[in-house]
Amino acid sequence: MPPSSVPTMASVNSREGLNGDTTMYHPLGPLTGTEFRDCAAVLQAAWPEHTSLQFKSMLLLEPPKTELLAYLDAERQGKSPQALDRRVYVAYYLRNTDTLHEAHVNLTSKAVERNERLGSHIHAPNDPEEVFAIEDEVLKHPRVQEELAKLKLPPSTAIVCDPWIYGSDGINKGDRRDDLRLVQCYLYARDPKHPDMEDGCHYAYPLPISPVMSPVDLSLLRIDILPTGLDHTVRPLQPLTLGPPSEYVPEKQTLREGLKPLHVVQPEGTSFTVKHYSDLGRTIYWQKWDFKIGFNAREGMIIYDVHYDDKPLFHRLSLSDMAIPYADPRHPYHRKAAFDLGDVGAGIVSNNLKLGCDCLGSIYYISGLVNDTKGNPKEVPNAICIHEVDDGILWKHTNYRTKRGVVVRNRELVVQQILTVANYEYVLAWKFNLSGDITYEVRATGILSTQPLDDSLTTVENPFGTVVHPGVLAAYHQHFFSLRIDPRIAGSGNEIACDEARALPRDLDLNPHGTGYTVKRSQLAKSGGYDLDQTTNRVFKILNSQVRNEVNGSAVGYKIHAPPMQFLLADQDSYHHKRAEFADHNIYLTKYREDELFAGGTFTNQSRGGTGVRSWADRNEHLDGEPVVWVNFGLNHFPRVENFPVMPAETIKIMLRPDNFFGKNPAIDVPPSEQAFNKSVLVNGCGRT
Amino acid sequence: MPPSSVPTMASVNSREGLNGDTTMYHPLGPLTGTEFRDCAAVLQAAWPEHTSLQFKSMLLLEPPKTELLAYLDAERQGKSPQALDRRVYVAYYLRNTDTLHEAHVNLTSKAVERNERLGSHIHAPNDPEEVFAIEDEVLKHPRVQEELAKLKLPPSTAIVCDPWIYGSDGINKGDRRDDLRLVQCYLYARDPKHPDMEDGCHYAYPLPISPVMSPVDLSLLRIDILPTGLDHTVRPLQPLTLGPPSEYVPEKQTLREGLKPLHVVQPEGTSFTVKHYSDLGRTIYWQKWDFKIGFNAREGMIIYDVHYDDKPLFHRLSLSDMAIPYADPRHPYHRKAAFDLGDVGAGIVSNNLKLGCDCLGSIYYISGLVNDTKGNPKEVPNAICIHEVDDGILWKHTNYRTKRGVVVRNRELVVQQILTVANYEYVLAWKFNLSGDITYEVRATGILSTQPLDDSLTTVENPFGTVVHPGVLAAYHQHFFSLRIDPRIAGSGNEIACDEARALPRDLDLNPHGTGYTVKRSQLAKSGGYDLDQTTNRVFKILNSQVRNEVNGSAVGYKIHAPPMQFLLADQDSYHHKRAEFADHNIYLTKYREDELFAGGTFTNQSRGGTGVRSWADRNEHLDGEPVVWVNFGLNHFPRVENFPVMPAETIKIMLRPDNFFGKNPAIDVPPSEQAFNKSVLVNGCGRT
Repeated sequence: MPPSSVPTMASVNSREGLNGDTTMYHPLGPLTGTEFRDCAAVLQAAWPEHTSLQFKSMLLLEPPKTELLAYLDAERQGKSPQALDRRVYVAYYLRNTDTLHEAHVNLTSKAVERNERLGSHIHAPNDPEEVFAIEDEVLKHPRVQEELAKLKLPPSTAIVCDPWIYGSDGINKGDRRDDLRLVQCYLYARDPKHPDMEDGCHYAYPLPISPVMSPVDLSLLRIDILPTGLDHTVRPLQPLTLGPPSEYVPEKQTLREGLKPLHVVQPEGTSFTVKHYSDLGRTIYWQKWDFKIGFNAREGMIIYDVHYDDKPLFHRLSLSDMAIPYADPRHPYHRKAAFDLGDVGAGIVSNNLKLGCDCLGSIYYISGLVNDTKGNPKEVPNAICIHEVDDGILWKHTNYRTKRGVVVRNRELVVQQILTVANYEYVLAWKFNLSGDITYEVRATGILSTQPLDDSLTTVENPFGTVVHPGVLAAYHQHFFSLRIDPRIAGSGNEIACDEARALPRDLDLNPHGTGYTVKRSQLAKSGGYDLDQTTNRVFKILNSQVRNEVNGSAVGYKIHAPPMQFLLADQDSYHHKRAEFADHNIYLTKYREDELFAGGTFTNQSRGGTGVRSWADRNEHLDGEPVVWVNFGLNHFPRVENFPVMPAETIKIMLRPDNFFGKNPAIDVPPSEQAFNKSVLVNGCGRT
Repeated sequence: MPPSSVPTMASVNSREGLNGDTTMYHPLGPLTGTEFRDCAAVLQAAWPEHTSLQFKSMLLLEPPKTELLAYLDAERQGKSPQALDRRVYVAYYLRNTDTLHEAHVNLTSKAVERNERLGSHIHAPNDPEEVFAIEDEVLKHPRVQEELAKLKLPPSTAIVCDPWIYGSDGINKGDRRDDLRLVQCYLYARDPKHPDMEDGCHYAYPLPISPVMSPVDLSLLRIDILPTGLDHTVRPLQPLTLGPPSEYVPEKQTLREGLKPLHVVQPEGTSFTVKHYSDLGRTIYWQKWDFKIGFNAREGMIIYDVHYDDKPLFHRLSLSDMAIPYADPRHPYHRKAAFDLGDVGAGIVSNNLKLGCDCLGSIYYISGLVNDTKGNPKEVPNAICIHEVDDGILWKHTNYRTKRGVVVRNRELVVQQILTVANYEYVLAWKFNLSGDITYEVRATGILSTQPLDDSLTTVENPFGTVVHPGVLAAYHQHFFSLRIDPRIAGSGNEIACDEARALPRDLDLNPHGTGYTVKRSQLAKSGGYDLDQTTNRVFKILNSQVRNEVNGSAVGYKIHAPPMQFLLADQDSYHHKRAEFADHNIYLTKYREDELFAGGTFTNQSRGGTGVRSWADRNEHLDGEPVVWVNFGLNHFPRVENFPVMPAETIKIMLRPDNFFGKNPAIDVPPSEQAFNKSVLVNGCGRT
């Protein structure tokens, strides 16, 4: 149940928010339909009539943190704090040009507070309208058709174009071409026997032709021919024999049998309560937790104002960006380096989650709003789903003398979103549990981005990837994620430390048998990049030394469990390195600044680096009680044949866990696991059948 | 459904096996009641009448592997292979002496094939009869009572004794005392207000008195007084004021509210089928998997003969041992170093799993048999449970053009066992999934082993542990586990390799932008210790180069996903190091030998090292196609206040995952996740409420 100090809000049908009416104010409320339209109108009015604006990003510009925290604290105390101005961050082009502007629009005063033309080498993300326009245009182009004809594919073959972010390589440095916004297109065929099967897996048929297009005017700049051997040699195009298909749709499988239904049933309903904190924002109350869920086009779901048992823990939790650089160094593959949030947007590519498919059990859905290029709101239906999951045993002890066991099961509250970024999927979830842990889980699935390969070549010979299907190479690549943690452990004024286990030296009195070790704590006072060290079991902690643990007097804290990660393999002079500012350390610490939300910088499309978290950390500032923690994690993906045509998920988890925060196990009060409650079914007779 | 080549076995009530009748032969069948009794009788007959034997270990001695594999292959082909001799490995004392023997008893020929008196420094594990006898005896001892009296505890106070394995320290080297089998006892009080509360948490009241007992004759050797300050100083005993209790039983909590029931319902029954392969052995058939489950006193559950889609994968999977050395270097804590399998036995301390408590859903239970010290069978009821779990999304792809998503959920088959080793619990599970992965999961929970601490001292000052309750120190300690993998990937003749990602050098032709990297494979031809290396993303693989992947021609394989681990912190000259032979490398490789099953050696109680996996690996042998892989993993446990009185589980996982073993995603044929099958419940109206 929500704590009584939280004002009870009238039930609001969020359809109003989705469709345009703003009825319920909150400084962290996701932008409503009305607000998108108002923002566009205010900005449009700042330009001469008939100027056509192409809106790229329209994101809630959250109030300055000091004002925001005062508001949130007053709200929690049951007061009615004064409304703060609503502002929008906007990035937009003058349509059909590369003239990019960044603006701050005050919706409360209807004023454009900032409107700046951005300099060279800054490009806004691609948007779906551009992507679809390019897909349509590229295949119509006579020069592309001419190249395709050389492949002599069966006449009925359907061709599919995947527009790709262009990356940066500095090749045209100093040249005008260096500042063009571009899209590289990868072409595929569908199974020629089924040209109309729109869900056919074209990634089984990569073609060696890559047109480069301008999203500004949809012109074709050039056509790259892809290397298909073991080195950078590019063969002239020749007739291509298409191999067997590899389909993932169920109607093309002989589906396995025998998997019986497994239902998750909550006969008394869910344990969580949802309230609107604004038209589109939701506050979740569950098992002593409360937090707000926001949503925007770039970050997708955002978790705000996390409290446990009314104690503040985190102000803002968000995935700040991803970077996926590829290993194949050959032109043009060296440009494959995507920033899926900065180049596209997690909110924009959110899946429409389906009941009984993407979750199991009793599910609550939240839809989101993003802008289209005209500045109109566009619904992202069922972008977030919320449900409870049983997570096995949380704690157990059996008294071996009395044989009495007390066992408590873990329950997780899962807040989930799924992204489709062209070929690839990310299942992203925040999981809250009964013992004060928060886990961020990434499941990487979807389809590998494939390349054509002379089909006599096997993986044993190929230095850049794995042959996952006849004639299909899946290049090695790295995935990097940067989780932004804006902490508020037990209130404001947080510090960062790391603890390490160190062997004690042999000492006749104190360590006579060489068995002793101790823990050494180091305060991390300044911004910078910090790394895990397994040899010392280094663990990073967020502490509040103004609040002391009730039992042992240590600074209350949360620790960060992060998995090991191989850092970026591209060298330090490469653009991959310059741009992926979160791929070279496990943790970055920065001092809080209002406009620093995205680890790769605000603009990642064809970026040159110098605008992200590494650069901010390099200021070498005292954190001064205002740390922001960027937890970087990832995986080096060496594809295996089992990853095709769709890969079983690779799972990575980050955990935030109380560390001397509570006075005892915070889940000691969870009712024990009992058959009367759980209603399990005995398959055999008392273990004897 | 079981493959038709497997002979259908008559349904047998295993109560027969539990109670004594042997009706169903299999070379891997766990020892039956009859077999335990027969073994004891055969061995007893080898001694003069009235010789009293104290049976410690009685374990199935599996047939030589070559014969066994021939039997298993013939069985799989539907033939009726000839029975192999049944043998038992026995370790036993002449009762009330320290005269230890090791014997091999052939049950088929009723012959003692080996019967050897073991040399000095070799001690069998503790057994429950000894432990309970010591608990009874120690508190009656006048000298113990005398020391306790000095504490001036309230008259009604109940005292509890936890007998502990004695460790080794070499202090009495050369002395006769050096070869005594001993038990160190740690004493605790219960809440003096509730002396009769047998399930009271005495770990909240550690006392500074540690009697050392002989399990041979239950004599008291000496009483150690424990240091309770910040160094090794031992204060004379003085009156002790007991602090507040910390209870874990639900009747002592104000239980939280609002956690609604969550049921797992399988209306059409489970997807797995269970058949007896012997009186007590079970074969499980589930979603193309089949494997056998065995059980013994030492290892608990053992997984044999694992196949997927009739392809051999693993011959034998088992937890081979654990080591838990403590950080506090002060006498007598420096002797706290337990080997929970070797010193006690996973089968012996298996929990009696309860329906609806330890698992959720439709559960199948298996009971086990171990021996008592008279050689009689003793039932371990419901030692293993089997059930299915939904594990979220296994794979998904959404075609962003058609918006059609295909999503497949993962299902896991969980084979679980829970150990209680005095204060501590381990939830151990083998998990098989739909895409060919096998995960071994450890959840470490239970109660910290606590020490008394002068209650003015806080954790900030204590170098050896964390103050988790007033006057209660929980020392730092490490947990090490060694998983023994006897592989049979695609048949006999396996090799081990590791793959590493390596940056390519800049090269004007081949890597002009410094972005390229490749994978380098190294064959590991010899036995030895090998380590993970995050800087190269080193991954260990079990390969069969005689069988080639159908798509890319690479050797078929399984890779091992193991987490990082801080190696043992005790120095190389310490007994902790000598004994914990699996705590200094992530992986040990040995060449298969019949009698090498336990990473810490056959006898770990007060062991001196030199008899475990490190020693075997040091033979530096060519693996010759017969590798055994020992995956070592663990955690350095810095207790936090939240770990008391019972700790929320710390989870560690090892994954065995197909790596170019299959021709495509092996789960591509799993029926997609659909509402008609999953019957989820919509909490709000289409995401709009």
